[in-house]
Amino acid sequence: MFDSGLGGLTVARALRRALPLERIVYLGDTARVPYGTRSPETVLRYARACSRVLIERGVKGLVVACNTVSAVALEMLRAELDLPVLGVVEPGARSAVEALERRPPRHGEPAKIGVLGTHGTILSGAYPRAIGRLSTRVEVLAAPAPLLVPLVEEGWLEGEVPRLAVERYVEPLLAAGARVLVLGCTHYPLLAPVIGEVARRLSGEDVAIVDSAVATAEDVARWIAEERIVRAPGSSPLPPLEILVTDRPASFQAVAARFLGADAPSVVQIDLGAALSS
Amino acid sequence: MFDSGLGGLTVARALRRALPLERIVYLGDTARVPYGTRSPETVLRYARACSRVLIERGVKGLVVACNTVSAVALEMLRAELDLPVLGVVEPGARSAVEALERRPPRHGEPAKIGVLGTHGTILSGAYPRAIGRLSTRVEVLAAPAPLLVPLVEEGWLEGEVPRLAVERYVEPLLAAGARVLVLGCTHYPLLAPVIGEVARRLSGEDVAIVDSAVATAEDVARWIAEERIVRAPGSSPLPPLEILVTDRPASFQAVAARFLGADAPSVVQIDLGAALSS
Repeated sequence: MFDSGLGGLTVARALRRALPLERIVYLGDTARVPYGTRSPETVLRYARACSRVLIERGVKGLVVACNTVSAVALEMLRAELDLPVLGVVEPGARSAVEALERRPPRHGEPAKIGVLGTHGTILSGAYPRAIGRLSTRVEVLAAPAPLLVPLVEEGWLEGEVPRLAVERYVEPLLAAGARVLVLGCTHYPLLAPVIGEVARRLSGEDVAIVDSAVATAEDVARWIAEERIVRAPGSSPLPPLEILVTDRPASFQAVAARFLGADAPSVVQIDLGAALSS
Repeated sequence: MFDSGLGGLTVARALRRALPLERIVYLGDTARVPYGTRSPETVLRYARACSRVLIERGVKGLVVACNTVSAVALEMLRAELDLPVLGVVEPGARSAVEALERRPPRHGEPAKIGVLGTHGTILSGAYPRAIGRLSTRVEVLAAPAPLLVPLVEEGWLEGEVPRLAVERYVEPLLAAGARVLVLGCTHYPLLAPVIGEVARRLSGEDVAIVDSAVATAEDVARWIAEERIVRAPGSSPLPPLEILVTDRPASFQAVAARFLGADAPSVVQIDLGAALSS
């Protein structure tokens, strides 16, 4: 699996829980994070380089644990690569539609799904497309929330600045009738407490906050059950999670330990230079 | 000249005013911005790639219009490259010391210089070193202000979020006695109105806000006067400013026009892939 930085660790954690026998290699492209402000062409180029490095390490399936890459480059990666490739947008869309179905219409108005994401994800229209394939009756409201990634990367997860930034992004979605909010970026779950608090305060009711990590892990497990991905032969649970990064590992290691709980994994730095230019 | 992104355009504008006869090529590494959160090794690798591309275009001198690169990689670039290399830290330090000399001590306490910069710039200690070479009596307080770059890149230049973020960074510097604030990142001049307002409100007096763009342009002019850089032979003023970027040019072009005034320059996308991996 790969992500632009550390956000995909939310997916890594869910994957380890769902599939304790599978060996996971996580690549965070920390030398080039964030992806969400870059053009689709640049995102595709970086995604190809990340995929190539993981394929060289012998992976049997690829999880794109990054919404921006899933939104703008997944179809190209699937066409180009000779192994199963799973993104986070489709599982996130499915979770959102399921959450919406649990909410009855209010004042005769059907509830709507709001999506927060990076510029790249929102401009791609990937969430409205994926949700539209699941249900033709759902209205989707999408808003770029670009400052949330740097807030998470800097660890500003509480206090007035993240609250005001979240308010600015969430308020128009709620005002337009959103009662389900999709965290359309794997960084955002770290701000879920702030987003939930702001949504409850502004809407005066319970708003469902959806993140795609668990749904993505479920999809990987299903692909393994359906033999679209080969099942791990081993029997010892929780083999070491291998983490690769493209910038210095020190600060990433501390964050990874926070994300993944007790067992602080080792983090190794690699160079994408050759994979990028070819 | 090069910068991680668009911040260096503040230096480009000052250079064009100071040296209307010189042809300027500006490279913004927008596919890898920001640099300020990356390790020194990664910044040096990116800086080498930018320098190589500009040298291949036949430049006679190199202005590193990025504080992070100037702080962590300037000495290496000077040692490796066979042309004059000028950074923005030394000119900024000189401006700060000059601003400080215009401020008398208060209550017998000598005034201090506060520096705002990226993680990379502050951790390098480049500003205290550069200021220490100019005056041994000055105390320097330095604080990383990492969220200001994404705020500028997103165009959040006014309102409550930038004001609160600036307050959080500036307040400890003022409380410790800073009466000169160095904008130790070429992005920050776009937030200078907010920084000035916050500093005046919190300190109750006039605080000098120093940016290194004009001082850097003066240094380039001096190097040309001293024949350390060859003087332009031409006579037609304001030749076109050439702008290269590594991600899609569209949004950069709009910002460049805002920075540089009437003449919106053309912006061309190039690929650093080969220069990065070699």
